[in-house]
Amino acid sequence: MDLVARLRVIPDFPRPGISFKDITPLLKDAAAFREAIGRLGAACGNLDFEVVVAPEARGFIVGSALAQALGKGFVPVRKAGKLPAVTLAGEYQLEYGASRLEIHRDAVRPGQRVLAVDDVLATGGTILATLDLIQRLGGVVAGVAFLIELAYLPGRQRLGEYRVFSVLSLET
Amino acid sequence: MDLVARLRVIPDFPRPGISFKDITPLLKDAAAFREAIGRLGAACGNLDFEVVVAPEARGFIVGSALAQALGKGFVPVRKAGKLPAVTLAGEYQLEYGASRLEIHRDAVRPGQRVLAVDDVLATGGTILATLDLIQRLGGVVAGVAFLIELAYLPGRQRLGEYRVFSVLSLET
Repeated sequence: MDLVARLRVIPDFPRPGISFKDITPLLKDAAAFREAIGRLGAACGNLDFEVVVAPEARGFIVGSALAQALGKGFVPVRKAGKLPAVTLAGEYQLEYGASRLEIHRDAVRPGQRVLAVDDVLATGGTILATLDLIQRLGGVVAGVAFLIELAYLPGRQRLGEYRVFSVLSLET
Repeated sequence: MDLVARLRVIPDFPRPGISFKDITPLLKDAAAFREAIGRLGAACGNLDFEVVVAPEARGFIVGSALAQALGKGFVPVRKAGKLPAVTLAGEYQLEYGASRLEIHRDAVRPGQRVLAVDDVLATGGTILATLDLIQRLGGVVAGVAFLIELAYLPGRQRLGEYRVFSVLSLET
């Protein structure tokens, strides 16, 4: 199945000069959504990990479906003030400006193995922030998985020390 | 499995007087997460529908996992300015104040059957806003499904015309 044909490119979103890869046409197509999560699961399903950790909000869509498909737990990373219990927080420079991200302090145990998931790997800011929170809790990053990787941006280089998986690698 | 024991109650979040039901302990427990989604799927799996529609952000976690488990498509409803393509929008009075929600105009076809999903049914504001957007696109609401229903709030009464499913009904 041609999953790339189910993507939609939106020019100048959310800012002029950004060519946004819209995954919603793929998600709403049941067969394409299942195939995409199936391929992602096959790519990283042999990794040893207990939980998927994903940043809001599109990361929740991909991460939760993948956790369900692989029989793993799910941990959300959220914007400031959204998580109700005691959190660990950090200020990060993300794709579209600085932002505060949080994780529950009891979300990951020291030594617990984790797969970090997001929808798109662009410059890597959001996922590096997520990995920082996981590791500050003592978690071990078994791998990092994306539906889409933008190969023309330096995300993968910035994740050089991790095992990185993606279903679709886009050159433009 | 006692799923209620995997919930955590946070007093006075996000505002004084609100007793927040935190689902994150359930989500991070792989067996509990799988059981919860399995039960939800069993409750509404016989309904005739093509896509799950869910509001951000916790709705994405439950809705995406359920769509994956049942082999359905997934459509996100988002806060203002987050969806990249042409949207239909509405201003709604939600639990914690007025808010603008959006759906892509091509997300649901006229006559398409839809299951609306969120994590918690409280007063019903968010899900009624989601149903309004679905129906303004011509979609048909096959049912409405929640992980948790707060039976001491009037959500279910306000959804009286729909088929409503939940895994856990809390009396306090």
